[in-house]
Formats: sequence, C-alpha cells, structure tokens
Amino acid sequence: MTDQRSRKTAAVLAIGDELLSGRTRDANIHFLAGWLTERAIALVEARIAPDEQALIVENLNVLRARYDYVFTSGGIGPTHDDITVDAIAAAFAVPVVEHPKAMAMIEAWYGARDEAVTPARRRMARTPEGAVLIENPVSGAPGVRIANVFVMAGVPRIFRGMLNAVDAALERGVQMHSCAVTAAGLPESQIADELREIQAKQKGVALGSYPIDGDIKGVTVIARAEDEALATKAIDAVRSAMRKMGFDPIDADRK
Amino acid sequence: MTDQRSRKTAAVLAIGDELLSGRTRDANIHFLAGWLTERAIALVEARIAPDEQALIVENLNVLRARYDYVFTSGGIGPTHDDITVDAIAAAFAVPVVEHPKAMAMIEAWYGARDEAVTPARRRMARTPEGAVLIENPVSGAPGVRIANVFVMAGVPRIFRGMLNAVDAALERGVQMHSCAVTAAGLPESQIADELREIQAKQKGVALGSYPIDGDIKGVTVIARAEDEALATKAIDAVRSAMRKMGFDPIDADRK
Repeated sequence: MTDQRSRKTAAVLAIGDELLSGRTRDANIHFLAGWLTERAIALVEARIAPDEQALIVENLNVLRARYDYVFTSGGIGPTHDDITVDAIAAAFAVPVVEHPKAMAMIEAWYGARDEAVTPARRRMARTPEGAVLIENPVSGAPGVRIANVFVMAGVPRIFRGMLNAVDAALERGVQMHSCAVTAAGLPESQIADELREIQAKQKGVALGSYPIDGDIKGVTVIARAEDEALATKAIDAVRSAMRKMGFDPIDADRK
Repeated sequence: MTDQRSRKTAAVLAIGDELLSGRTRDANIHFLAGWLTERAIALVEARIAPDEQALIVENLNVLRARYDYVFTSGGIGPTHDDITVDAIAAAFAVPVVEHPKAMAMIEAWYGARDEAVTPARRRMARTPEGAVLIENPVSGAPGVRIANVFVMAGVPRIFRGMLNAVDAALERGVQMHSCAVTAAGLPESQIADELREIQAKQKGVALGSYPIDGDIKGVTVIARAEDEALATKAIDAVRSAMRKMGFDPIDADRK
C-alpha cells in the first residue's frame, strides 16, 4: 500500500461476537473497502472485535489516533449485548447521554407505526456526549459521529444507508488510477520474476499480483498509481511479459 | 464474549492490499471462526492489514502476546508483493533463511511437473529462522509455524488445507453448548427488555440477539454456556417470552 500517505486514510472496526463465532460473515468491511476506494480514501486497516468493552476501547483508540476516519459497525441496537455506544463513550472519556433529537426521531418512528417506545427502544437514543447524529433512513434509530469516528449499525442495509448519510462529510483524497490484466492458465509463480523487475523499474506504481484459484487458474496483475500514464506503462510491460510466455492477457477488474 | 477466559483463545491477521481495496472479499476469517468454534477455541479478534511490513509487525506482536494462537493468511506466495515471511521474521527479530526441507518440497513439486524452480519459486522456501513447516497439500509451497503463530496462504483452498495440517497440534478448550430460537416477524426491539431480564437472571450464560434483515424480518436469540442445562433453561425462557408476544419460536442455527 505504497500510495496511502498521499491519500486520506481510514480504518474500520466491526463489532460483534457473532462475527467471530462463525455465525455471521461480516459484509460491511468488504462493502466499505470498495466504497472508500471509489472516493479515493484508503482503507488501511480493518478489525473485528467482540462485544467486550475493553477490546473495543483499545482498538478504537489506536485506530482513531492513526487514521483520518474510523467507521464502526454493529452493537448500537436495543438489546443488552449492544454495548458499542458505552464503549465509544469510554474511549473518548465522555458520559453517555440521552440525545433529545435522537429521542424525537425514535418517538416519531414508533409513533408512526403505533408501537410503544419501550425502555429498550429508548436506549437507542443514548449517545456519547458531544456526538452528532447520523441519519438512519432504514429503521429510525440513528448512528452517531464523534470527532473522526462514525458509529454505525451492523445490519448491512442500515450500514449502507448510514454511509450514504455521511458521504458528503468525507474529504476525498487523491484519486488513484489502475489498470489490470488477467492471463488464464498462467501460474503466478511463472511470471513472478518478471513482475519483480517491472516493479523495480517503475517507482510511483504499485503492482499487485493475485492468483486465481477458481475453475480456471491464472493470475491477475493490477497496477495502481496517481499518474495514469505510469499505471498504463507498467501494465503494458506486464502484458508483454505475458505474451512472451505464450499467454493472451485480457483486461480485468481494476479495483 | 463472556466465555473466552476459560477457553483457549485465538486471533487471525489476514494480510493483503486486495482485502482493503474492495477487490477481494476475505473468506478466511469467517471460515476460521466456524472452524475454531467447532474446536472449542475462541476467536477473540480478527484484523486485516495491508502489505506493509510495519503494520504487519505491530499487529502480529500485539496479537501473539495476547492470545494462545495466531493465524495469518496471505502474502506467502512468490511475487514481490508477498512480504509476510519477512514481516513475521522482523516481528520475532530473527533472520529469514532458506529452509532446506521447504526447498526440497518445492523442488519435488515443480520437478514432478517438469517446471523450472525459478528464483521466484525458490523464494517460497524462505522462512523465519526456527520456523517449522506446515504442509501444503494443494500447491506445494509450505506455510510455517513459529512459536504460537501459524503463517498460512491466503488462497482459501490452500488456507483450509493448511488448517487441516495443523489441526492435531491445537489444544482444544472447554466445549461451549448453545441453543437458539428464531421468531419470524418479531422486531428485536420488542423483546429486548425481556432479554435483558433473562440475561440478568442467568449468570454463566451469554445471550446473543441477532436481528434478521432478509426477506423475512425477525430475531434469532442464542444462549451459550459451558453448562448445557443453563443454556437450555435460558432459551426456554426466551421461547416463552416470544410466545407471550404471540410469536411462534422455531429452532435455529446454534453457531
């Protein structure tokens, strides 16, 4: 990740025992990774922590000091095992308060559905003091932003809704350009020496090599650079190395 | 994760820029989570780091000090962007050496296929000094174990093959028992107060509540305990709370 220093940086902390027990496969890290790439923000680290305050606090404090933005997912619902808000408040050493506007949003949401605002639902209006609300278009209960930390829901549909709500608040970085080629049937190890040479000659480009292990084997090589011409030049060199080995390079997904 | 202290613990560090760019959705963390749960080993943290030595070293050193086992995935292939072996060696402050047995395995693998052992392929015999090999039944080049760290391939099929190869070396923890019920149509927030009461009465049980956000909405509640009778008792209480609300609880996946 040679490019990250000239770009805005981010990390994500997904929270929930179910992500670590094998029950649920996290979907938010991968979605966020692609979403941030489109916005020229580099996701530099991702972590998954259990529903345990000390571990959430420790991870959050490392990440928020190190990156421009930190996104958390999960643990902001109404149940006893939703402890993220308390953990975030502890990390910032601020109290948890009932946010009047969040309370109004929750009352309006359940009021419109003729459902009672139970104590558990009321809990979803608790925020770290000083936090700003993140709108939740899907299910009423908002997320929160505090400093550079965006605290969002774990349910993927709600997580994505909240990302849309914060999109305008994020500062974009320097857009990276990328080019990619795939050679079906070419083992990565066969072209590895050539890739190393091409990489050594091309400063300002990061060459990534990704073996394909599906029904069709092969390798995809991606060149990423701030300067589009450099990425193109590097991938042209890769393409010609592939041809010399008797393989036919085709364009590939450039993410 | 109230149970982890009486169990063997583990962490996983997945390595690769492609996991953070949105290009590749990591599959190894989720697979490992379920695999360890079956073996009564608690996966307590998961992290994804880019192909950047300083970040790999720092994360690895935190995790290997904190947990019984650490698994890494990715970055042990033949290309210039495969830097995991060097990073692991740096974390342990040992040199990288060419492992004679690894070299013999690689020579045998390519020899059997009439392919040359290129410099890049030879690189896959490099290991941190003192490491023990992990057999790779899929593609020849081995992983390595050093102290409590298992360094394995990122390609999911190879990762799983290597897990099988280390299975016998892992010490199992105390087996957890779990029971689970799902109520279709019941919003999590409606039963949240009752769950909190049941949890408060049942020490030794961890109740997890997981909203379902598919075509059918609802909630799944899982009770986990070392004592099977406690888990059953807790889930019976949840079942009866669901019935009182007019919902029909059904058995659910207990992971």
